[in-house]
Amino acid sequence: MKKVKKRSGKRGLPPGSFVQVNDEENRNTSLRVFTFDKEEWSEKTLKNLGECPVVDPTRTTWLDIDGLNTDETLQAVGKQFDLHPLLLEDVLNTEHRPKVEEYPDTLFIVAKMLTLGEENGNVQVEQICFVLRKGLVISFQERPGDILNPIRDRIRQNTGRVRRAGADYLVYALLDVIVDNYFVIVESLGERIEKLEQKVMLRPGNEDLFTMQELRSQLITIGRYVTPTRELAGRLHTMQSDVIDNSTRKYINDLQDHAVYIAETIGTHREMLTNLENSFHAMFNLRSGQVIKLLTITSTIFIPLTFIVGVYGMNFDRMPWLHSRFGFYGVMAFMIALSFGMLLWFRSKRWL
Amino acid sequence: MKKVKKRSGKRGLPPGSFVQVNDEENRNTSLRVFTFDKEEWSEKTLKNLGECPVVDPTRTTWLDIDGLNTDETLQAVGKQFDLHPLLLEDVLNTEHRPKVEEYPDTLFIVAKMLTLGEENGNVQVEQICFVLRKGLVISFQERPGDILNPIRDRIRQNTGRVRRAGADYLVYALLDVIVDNYFVIVESLGERIEKLEQKVMLRPGNEDLFTMQELRSQLITIGRYVTPTRELAGRLHTMQSDVIDNSTRKYINDLQDHAVYIAETIGTHREMLTNLENSFHAMFNLRSGQVIKLLTITSTIFIPLTFIVGVYGMNFDRMPWLHSRFGFYGVMAFMIALSFGMLLWFRSKRWL
Amino acid sequence: MKKVKKRSGKRGLPPGSFVQVNDEENRNTSLRVFTFDKEEWSEKTLKNLGECPVVDPTRTTWLDIDGLNTDETLQAVGKQFDLHPLLLEDVLNTEHRPKVEEYPDTLFIVAKMLTLGEENGNVQVEQICFVLRKGLVISFQERPGDILNPIRDRIRQNTGRVRRAGADYLVYALLDVIVDNYFVIVESLGERIEKLEQKVMLRPGNEDLFTMQELRSQLITIGRYVTPTRELAGRLHTMQSDVIDNSTRKYINDLQDHAVYIAETIGTHREMLTNLENSFHAMFNLRSGQVIKLLTITSTIFIPLTFIVGVYGMNFDRMPWLHSRFGFYGVMAFMIALSFGMLLWFRSKRWL
Amino acid sequence: MKKVKKRSGKRGLPPGSFVQVNDEENRNTSLRVFTFDKEEWSEKTLKNLGECPVVDPTRTTWLDIDGLNTDETLQAVGKQFDLHPLLLEDVLNTEHRPKVEEYPDTLFIVAKMLTLGEENGNVQVEQICFVLRKGLVISFQERPGDILNPIRDRIRQNTGRVRRAGADYLVYALLDVIVDNYFVIVESLGERIEKLEQKVMLRPGNEDLFTMQELRSQLITIGRYVTPTRELAGRLHTMQSDVIDNSTRKYINDLQDHAVYIAETIGTHREMLTNLENSFHAMFNLRSGQVIKLLTITSTIFIPLTFIVGVYGMNFDRMPWLHSRFGFYGVMAFMIALSFGMLLWFRSKRWL
Amino acid sequence: MKKVKKRSGKRGLPPGSFVQVNDEENRNTSLRVFTFDKEEWSEKTLKNLGECPVVDPTRTTWLDIDGLNTDETLQAVGKQFDLHPLLLEDVLNTEHRPKVEEYPDTLFIVAKMLTLGEENGNVQVEQICFVLRKGLVISFQERPGDILNPIRDRIRQNTGRVRRAGADYLVYALLDVIVDNYFVIVESLGERIEKLEQKVMLRPGNEDLFTMQELRSQLITIGRYVTPTRELAGRLHTMQSDVIDNSTRKYINDLQDHAVYIAETIGTHREMLTNLENSFHAMFNLRSGQVIKLLTITSTIFIPLTFIVGVYGMNFDRMPWLHSRFGFYGVMAFMIALSFGMLLWFRSKRWL
Repeated sequence: MKKVKKRSGKRGLPPGSFVQVNDEENRNTSLRVFTFDKEEWSEKTLKNLGECPVVDPTRTTWLDIDGLNTDETLQAVGKQFDLHPLLLEDVLNTEHRPKVEEYPDTLFIVAKMLTLGEENGNVQVEQICFVLRKGLVISFQERPGDILNPIRDRIRQNTGRVRRAGADYLVYALLDVIVDNYFVIVESLGERIEKLEQKVMLRPGNEDLFTMQELRSQLITIGRYVTPTRELAGRLHTMQSDVIDNSTRKYINDLQDHAVYIAETIGTHREMLTNLENSFHAMFNLRSGQVIKLLTITSTIFIPLTFIVGVYGMNFDRMPWLHSRFGFYGVMAFMIALSFGMLLWFRSKRWL
Repeated sequence: MKKVKKRSGKRGLPPGSFVQVNDEENRNTSLRVFTFDKEEWSEKTLKNLGECPVVDPTRTTWLDIDGLNTDETLQAVGKQFDLHPLLLEDVLNTEHRPKVEEYPDTLFIVAKMLTLGEENGNVQVEQICFVLRKGLVISFQERPGDILNPIRDRIRQNTGRVRRAGADYLVYALLDVIVDNYFVIVESLGERIEKLEQKVMLRPGNEDLFTMQELRSQLITIGRYVTPTRELAGRLHTMQSDVIDNSTRKYINDLQDHAVYIAETIGTHREMLTNLENSFHAMFNLRSGQVIKLLTITSTIFIPLTFIVGVYGMNFDRMPWLHSRFGFYGVMAFMIALSFGMLLWFRSKRWL
Repeated sequence: MKKVKKRSGKRGLPPGSFVQVNDEENRNTSLRVFTFDKEEWSEKTLKNLGECPVVDPTRTTWLDIDGLNTDETLQAVGKQFDLHPLLLEDVLNTEHRPKVEEYPDTLFIVAKMLTLGEENGNVQVEQICFVLRKGLVISFQERPGDILNPIRDRIRQNTGRVRRAGADYLVYALLDVIVDNYFVIVESLGERIEKLEQKVMLRPGNEDLFTMQELRSQLITIGRYVTPTRELAGRLHTMQSDVIDNSTRKYINDLQDHAVYIAETIGTHREMLTNLENSFHAMFNLRSGQVIKLLTITSTIFIPLTFIVGVYGMNFDRMPWLHSRFGFYGVMAFMIALSFGMLLWFRSKRWL
Repeated sequence: MKKVKKRSGKRGLPPGSFVQVNDEENRNTSLRVFTFDKEEWSEKTLKNLGECPVVDPTRTTWLDIDGLNTDETLQAVGKQFDLHPLLLEDVLNTEHRPKVEEYPDTLFIVAKMLTLGEENGNVQVEQICFVLRKGLVISFQERPGDILNPIRDRIRQNTGRVRRAGADYLVYALLDVIVDNYFVIVESLGERIEKLEQKVMLRPGNEDLFTMQELRSQLITIGRYVTPTRELAGRLHTMQSDVIDNSTRKYINDLQDHAVYIAETIGTHREMLTNLENSFHAMFNLRSGQVIKLLTITSTIFIPLTFIVGVYGMNFDRMPWLHSRFGFYGVMAFMIALSFGMLLWFRSKRWL
Repeated sequence: MKKVKKRSGKRGLPPGSFVQVNDEENRNTSLRVFTFDKEEWSEKTLKNLGECPVVDPTRTTWLDIDGLNTDETLQAVGKQFDLHPLLLEDVLNTEHRPKVEEYPDTLFIVAKMLTLGEENGNVQVEQICFVLRKGLVISFQERPGDILNPIRDRIRQNTGRVRRAGADYLVYALLDVIVDNYFVIVESLGERIEKLEQKVMLRPGNEDLFTMQELRSQLITIGRYVTPTRELAGRLHTMQSDVIDNSTRKYINDLQDHAVYIAETIGTHREMLTNLENSFHAMFNLRSGQVIKLLTITSTIFIPLTFIVGVYGMNFDRMPWLHSRFGFYGVMAFMIALSFGMLLWFRSKRWL
């Protein structure tokens, strides 16, 4: 997973300079506009911004921009809606932490969408920005994706409150979809930890080490985005802003609860993982200790015996018992007695 | 223990959508209503909500709902008592952290009941929600259970203040029973840790490793619910709400004290467990070190001796001392001297 | 040391129910009353509460209750002085954390006395409660004990300010004695840690492991009571209460300073202990490593030599050098050279 | 890397004493002055301070001082601009943490520039101080360097807002360049950690240990400067000062966001590094365990066998089977069977 | 280093009881008085307090008391200057944490002087107390020492602001000298850590273990005094007190900055030390692993070979190849091939 993207290119440039810091291949920008109120809705794919309808404060207009590769589009949007240069810079710079900023009559929200990669189960991070005004929402998505589709469908089918409530509720709904997606990932990690717990108890293996490192790495990454998302929801809930209606605050409070819950779940998962890692290492140490114990028992019994038989293998002319009738059997009996004595001693020390 | 339940099903649905996130088998819903004041009380099992008596603000009505599997019941309750859609969603979603929320004239409280599983001693988590209004308490319990029976009996038998005080005191009493149950679990874990401490000091074994992992796992789980319960009690104590009488605040303060005490006890237990784990590993290392010491002593003494007897086992025609009268005894004497020298050297290094 | 006492018995009972949660054998309750002002003092042992003199606000009355086993006494006290049921419940429940609570015209203080057990040096915990009103102090002690005797003597002998100042100063003086006792214990633990440090540096042994575990266990236990005592003193210092005179606040501030100092000393002791534990384990590892090094050196030198002499012990008819004149000496010379080469190689690797 | 510079020389001297605490070789001081407004700009290298133009509040004057080795220059600057003696002492003492201080009509800012050393990749720390007044910025740099060149170029070429905005924006721009440079370093460390992660997974080696120690050491060093820089930006953002224009606050807020982001990235890097270190040690332990397992298997199989052949190498006159026809083959068959039995046993224990 | 001094003697005594808790041998008390203003100064050594000049609020009087062994002196000072009994108790009790306390018209400051012991490099702790009033400073030093001499010289020679500013500035100057001394110690520890880092990288030895333990022990001790010193400076800076002039606050702020810087440096040193300890242990483990690897390689190669030669050393009458012409050479060739095979196998596993 890419954890730090290049920002060095911007060094020394004035703020508002458009240096695109995400280094992905070229993508097409898609512009879609939804206009709706309680009674009706329209949806239009725009070729250029000139086609964008005038914002009507009594209805909700959602300008839904997917894929940010053309500087011109962004500058056109900035010009048409009179957005602050810092806001535009923040949209392009995909290295922001989730945050909310107040501009006059405008809220600017940066959020992070997390998705589980198809092929390797890694967490993918994508930035999404919202501009919220009375009757207007502009969303900037890094890559086209279907994570916001449920909201689009709810507008089309007039499910829930989204058509009845205003632009602020739409932003809440979008953020709620994003946060609900965190649940999916955290749950999936939680299940992997539980499975690993059971596996480690039954038959721990070296491959579990890699799994644990990867799980922890993903928990660190997700935790990084969840904490500021919680702050974001908290600030949205308490801030005195005209563009957020009081009836929406209740919902934002619920959003904050979800973020807190996820953050706590991540904390619990991390503790569980630490607990599991400690158990893994302790079990490995116990096993290692048993291997050494076996080595010690074998050596302690047989090395002296080998010495004894070596003694009677010496070629001295004069050695006692060699020519005796029961010499061999005497030595063998002595060695058997010695072994039994040692085994008893090991048993008394609980090594066997 | 299930630590993360499925919430993914809700992703993208509007708030207020009824997606039941607990995945247990079907259960019957039982509706019971208690109406009481200082003088008299009545108790009725309802077949449907229509039978529910009208709330009389001068008395206390407790609608006691056990088992939440029918969406219709919940929607009927929501309709009859005019509850906010978010509140209803929170009742169904059993993944909430303990919290208190203010709605106009209404407090909504989410708490967690912890019980020790009969068969395996694991901690079972169950969510319970309270709706508190002047003269009305609605409780939603996930599963029918007898944890609240003491309160029901106190109403029936008019023990303590519960019949004399209002609906707010009833909610306090219910929460107090729940928190007192935390004590039972924390005490039981504390006793297991103490027993383990004594066992580990006398004869540590590999099975203790599993016990320690399991105890820590349970402390993590409980701790997760106790901390927000403490916050819940704190907020209840300080919040400016008409539905909580000043005379009840003293009791809620006491509840908060209990939650703080439990949280601190859990912290102490965790420290004790860490201390114990460290001792266990240290003792295991000491033992392992002694095993290796024995191996080293045996090998260091006998491997050179075996070499010496090997020398006199060689088949060279010409070797010194082989034909000498005292050759064998000389070599034996030398070897005995060597062994004693080594034993003395080991003793001087405190290995023996 | 008992760390968690049974509280389970209280589960489900209304607050104010008298369930005595300390499970010690029966004890007699002793009631003593001190009445004093600047000029004179009287001391009386009461048979029953009826003999208790009427509280005179211009003097100080101290009702000193030792040993809490009769429910009746407590209820009589509660009735005579009109104490809140929750306060009485808190007196009986010895599982409270140190705290201060405000009731109208009354302060209720729960503190913990720590003493070092005679026989085993373990820390004993005892709860003591104070009720403070204008001109009245009631103290409830779990067991009769002599820790408060210095204060009793200061009243009798009119030492210091205690007779001149009011009831609030008396409570301060009692708390000061309790906190000074913490010093004794923390000092004694600190000295044991220092001694252990010196011993571990000179000759570490397995028994040190047990000492370290026990010291940490005691530091955890004490720390648990010191932190809330600090908060208690802090709240007493800042609280706006009529029963605490401004001239006494300066002394309470001093009390708080002591509690902070003790808490910091415990923190330092814990860090020192961790430091010591790490050193102990590191030293043990170093020793273990040297044991293995010796094993490796012995084996690496003698195992190849034993092989060589084994070769010349084979019974083949045709083997080179066996019948040669210098065969034996040649082989011996080769083996000596080999051993020296290995010793030099070990030396070059700094193993010797 | 030098972590603590000598400050001992100052001990006991009055504040305002000029003891230069950086111990580098002599350097030349270069004085440059930029004067600019929206329309025009001038740039002049000064020989002495007397040539410095008078500050015109309607324009911005930037006195850019590089290399601080002459006490006289600093004292002259202090005299000409009437700077507080403590401020001057702080400029010379290069051991300050980043901070902002308010003097009447003057803000004094201490920041740290971090650069990656060319030859060894170590982090170099340099202190830079700013004096900000209406229309005046004085910057004191320890060593001449080109890190501020982009700002100088933006003034010359009138890029961005720097010429249009005032002295406060210039200070923001300078701080922004410094903070952007932190990104470069943190990114470079992040990339090294990622590379190390991949290497450790494939073929861990002892040299990775040094790399990990060095990376952690650098993260500690950088973290030390980033945290107070975040506080600095926070204070600049919230402080009520006449010399900071409201339009500049938005930019300072952005600066603070960057500092927070860097601090969080450092935190994540440290966690990742800890995770990596743990994996490294665990993998090393696993490998070590396998080495011991091999040793144990070899020894456990061959040491008894060697004993058996030793038995038949003894020189007793009377030994069974020695003269039997199938004695040798019988013993060999027994030994082979024994080895196979052991191998099967090892397999059953999952050691093979 | 003594970490906990006896305080037990005070237990149960009223506050203001003079129990001298430092247990050092008897010392003489020296009383010196400095009186100065901008123009002139006088210095006098007093035999008894009666000789002390009357305090003149327009000048500064500094009563400089060294060595606290006579109770009478302290009580005389207390009487003459009307000091609060708690203040006097705090002067005698050398176990206080650094703090500042407000009495009417009087500030009481407790600070700790740290010095490096000559003979063993250990940190020595000495308590110093200041009483500050308008025009009066009384300093109580535990032992006569020369750490405050620079200030005495500055008064004599009228260097810096000390003669021009008032009593508050004098106290600042004294505290500044004390805090500057912390720098000396922290720097010296920092240098020892750096040296150790280089040594451990080149040739780690067991003695480094003791050095690390000692360094950490000293960092813990110093840290204990620096944190409350930072708080002390912070409180002095913000407190509303008549005896501190506004012009002095700027200097106190600088003092606080220094204390913060030292606290952060200690934190960094501790992290560096932890990092170093981890590296030390990891390197030791790596070395230990290599020792075991050598043992395993030697044993795995030679133990089977020794078995083989043992086989041909058996005395059976009938054994194959013994009488064959190339038997010996065949067996030797087989053994050489076996060894090479093993060496190749070890190489393939990267053990060689």
